[in-house]
Amino acid sequence: MAKIDINSDLGEGFGAYKMGDDDAILAIVTSANVACGFHAGDPLVMARTCERARELGVSIGAHPGFADLQGFGRRPIPMSDAEIEAMVAYQIGALMGIAARAGTRVAHVKPHGALYNIAESDAGVAAALARAVKAVDPQLIFMAAVGSEMVPAAERLGLRVAQEAFADRTYTDDGRLVSRKLPGAVIRDAAVARDHVVRMVGEQALYSLGGRRIPGRIDTLCVHGDEPTAVAVAAAVKAGLLEAGFTVAALTI
Amino acid sequence: MAKIDINSDLGEGFGAYKMGDDDAILAIVTSANVACGFHAGDPLVMARTCERARELGVSIGAHPGFADLQGFGRRPIPMSDAEIEAMVAYQIGALMGIAARAGTRVAHVKPHGALYNIAESDAGVAAALARAVKAVDPQLIFMAAVGSEMVPAAERLGLRVAQEAFADRTYTDDGRLVSRKLPGAVIRDAAVARDHVVRMVGEQALYSLGGRRIPGRIDTLCVHGDEPTAVAVAAAVKAGLLEAGFTVAALTI
Amino acid sequence: MAKIDINSDLGEGFGAYKMGDDDAILAIVTSANVACGFHAGDPLVMARTCERARELGVSIGAHPGFADLQGFGRRPIPMSDAEIEAMVAYQIGALMGIAARAGTRVAHVKPHGALYNIAESDAGVAAALARAVKAVDPQLIFMAAVGSEMVPAAERLGLRVAQEAFADRTYTDDGRLVSRKLPGAVIRDAAVARDHVVRMVGEQALYSLGGRRIPGRIDTLCVHGDEPTAVAVAAAVKAGLLEAGFTVAALTI
Amino acid sequence: MAKIDINSDLGEGFGAYKMGDDDAILAIVTSANVACGFHAGDPLVMARTCERARELGVSIGAHPGFADLQGFGRRPIPMSDAEIEAMVAYQIGALMGIAARAGTRVAHVKPHGALYNIAESDAGVAAALARAVKAVDPQLIFMAAVGSEMVPAAERLGLRVAQEAFADRTYTDDGRLVSRKLPGAVIRDAAVARDHVVRMVGEQALYSLGGRRIPGRIDTLCVHGDEPTAVAVAAAVKAGLLEAGFTVAALTI
Repeated sequence: MAKIDINSDLGEGFGAYKMGDDDAILAIVTSANVACGFHAGDPLVMARTCERARELGVSIGAHPGFADLQGFGRRPIPMSDAEIEAMVAYQIGALMGIAARAGTRVAHVKPHGALYNIAESDAGVAAALARAVKAVDPQLIFMAAVGSEMVPAAERLGLRVAQEAFADRTYTDDGRLVSRKLPGAVIRDAAVARDHVVRMVGEQALYSLGGRRIPGRIDTLCVHGDEPTAVAVAAAVKAGLLEAGFTVAALTI
Repeated sequence: MAKIDINSDLGEGFGAYKMGDDDAILAIVTSANVACGFHAGDPLVMARTCERARELGVSIGAHPGFADLQGFGRRPIPMSDAEIEAMVAYQIGALMGIAARAGTRVAHVKPHGALYNIAESDAGVAAALARAVKAVDPQLIFMAAVGSEMVPAAERLGLRVAQEAFADRTYTDDGRLVSRKLPGAVIRDAAVARDHVVRMVGEQALYSLGGRRIPGRIDTLCVHGDEPTAVAVAAAVKAGLLEAGFTVAALTI
Repeated sequence: MAKIDINSDLGEGFGAYKMGDDDAILAIVTSANVACGFHAGDPLVMARTCERARELGVSIGAHPGFADLQGFGRRPIPMSDAEIEAMVAYQIGALMGIAARAGTRVAHVKPHGALYNIAESDAGVAAALARAVKAVDPQLIFMAAVGSEMVPAAERLGLRVAQEAFADRTYTDDGRLVSRKLPGAVIRDAAVARDHVVRMVGEQALYSLGGRRIPGRIDTLCVHGDEPTAVAVAAAVKAGLLEAGFTVAALTI
Repeated sequence: MAKIDINSDLGEGFGAYKMGDDDAILAIVTSANVACGFHAGDPLVMARTCERARELGVSIGAHPGFADLQGFGRRPIPMSDAEIEAMVAYQIGALMGIAARAGTRVAHVKPHGALYNIAESDAGVAAALARAVKAVDPQLIFMAAVGSEMVPAAERLGLRVAQEAFADRTYTDDGRLVSRKLPGAVIRDAAVARDHVVRMVGEQALYSLGGRRIPGRIDTLCVHGDEPTAVAVAAAVKAGLLEAGFTVAALTI
């Protein structure tokens, strides 16, 4: 596989609050996951993010999360599957409205934070997410953690799936993300991230903190924008992939 | 003109909070303006309102308002035109996502509360609203106060416009709504509302509290659901129109 | 024990949204647990509730909950003990500000919804609540579920504790509330509630749905205001207690 | 007058969002105006700000604003005087709860943003603020713009008043703050701010952008923390005042 997408979570400011260096990250990535106003983002932030992404040729995706600005969408909020489905359909649609006004369109959906974490292993929630995506637009690509419950949930509904590995996060031996609360969860050394990523994409396998090799398709790599080291890590990852001969481009699944 | 639409603002609950008797009103009206989660409504309330409207054959519209749940969208929040435009595009899109999931679609847009009141006389805000509607979907019908700035703003962009009179609210001699803070603003007597409406629709003119006749096209009548007398008023208005020979049906502009 | 307090959760409206028939309940109870703006309530609703309670001689307590208006404080939000402590100190203080302006004062604290449910069995959360109460005002009475972890947590800090049974809710054999999601959780028959309560207060013991007797001190009885049957249940409970010879009066622990 | 207080608006983060360099500013100022969770701040941010202020011997004040996180309290929200009064009593009380838990106490109140701006010239709102302060604790110092309507409103109720000038903002010829939307509103040059401040405090008079001298008592100087230049400006202002022979200390009115 010679082609890889690089995605990042963007548009996470709110009113007077800033989050991350979106301009720097947008200049590197090929897909932008835009916060939809529930865990972060507001209509004006979303509009500016879509406009800037369009100018830079970056593909846009919805990044729906729990309605929890104070917790930044990182706290699980107990909800029924029907409520999750409605909440996600709402957020995808909202970004579509904003994207249309910005002269662009939503190409993919990637759940955020606790919603993503739950859907990795909860088949019911994963199916609710997939149903929401399909209902709003069956052409949307579902961005899912490598080997997670999201993959079969989306495939079962005939959705296109892009499997995602994290460039700046580490994995457990089960192929799940190490919790942000634990040491070693975030990779802040650009060279380490680059080598980690080139190896994973080249081999189409995750490597855990414990050194375990977990085979899995990797269509897209996530880099974050909210760490001080994020831009340097993202740039190194992209440069490493290009040097290793990969084509870095938006998803065309 | 033998045909008239009856619309109502619905889906204005939030979480455990109820507002109005939606089921009773949905059985009467031909168009439902669904709150989009900013001044009222949440994804689950919106979903249920869309599902029920679809079952009853009621046409659905977006009812965007200021992000002010505490003030129920009735307080003007100072915002730039660009921010209003983004905020409205967001809300229309959000309801489209919810409606798609409910197996129906958004047919019109009617601004709520303070946003509506401002756009009646502020051409800049009216134009921002019209731009948002057109950007998201140029086929959407813009529901606008009879003779307000919203009408030329929408027409200038080539949008279809439905002019609206209020069945249960009174007018000033300038053809504007009497403020809810003033006595006599709301008509709670079903027979009074019925006669008022049949006369206005028949003559295609508003009649002010002071007795002034203000000619204007009337495509749709608004009845409210949040007064204790609302259902009786709405039912009487509809019965009166049918008796007077009008066809009551959703907009087909 | 010849004396019993009757408490109810009040002031749970928000902006244009109403919840329960506060005036009817305030005429019955001796203690009002006032929502503090996080799970319900806003400053104006709180102010009116405190003013009305003062007029009617009803004792006031803070009713802090999770910052979750959409979920009405009934969803557990994962938070550290320190955050819970700060959140509760904030809400107690906020009501103190409102009560001072209304010419009255806060006499007790009772956690709301999911926060209450968690603290029933989580000693860490119960201790965080007790620390918040003591820090803000060590004279405040901590209202705690009969036999729950809240009781020793508050006693350990030297706080006065009022143990609470529910007049309109049923109990499991472990002495915990039956979940609202299960059938039989709420008692809506006034005569059933009255007899249940008179027996429990007379014997100073809970009786579970399964008929099990669970001895425990009962200082106060909770009646709810948000069920259609709530006012009738509350009135019957009070009348039953008075007929059985108990004095119904605010806490004087 | 040989003594002057330096105050700053602090604790304006929210959840994962940061605002300003509080630690650097806390090391300079003598009074901290702590956001109370409506326009900014949350219980944990407030708690940490109070704890840090106590450690550094910085006096604490409540900084109540409109319930408008998205607009950072800078947008006027139409509210009745009674609602403003309740809203401010709530926020002062909330900070008192947090401060008590942090082992310190609230010494003053300074309204934030649009609430402050309105109260400068609206005697009714100024009186509502003063009533709220007095009701919660008549010992609180009311921090008011030099020569504004807040001063007589607070004095009429017997409150202690500290008149405030801004170190990093410019004035109109009427002695009002130049709007942030206009060029020249914010002073970002540390030397300019220092000289401006030393002159104003020394002469006990404001100097407008247009060069007009407006006599007025100056008890405290506000420096902001949310401009990139804020810390340098604040440090220069303090150093300039000390060099000019003033004592920089918290209010003791």
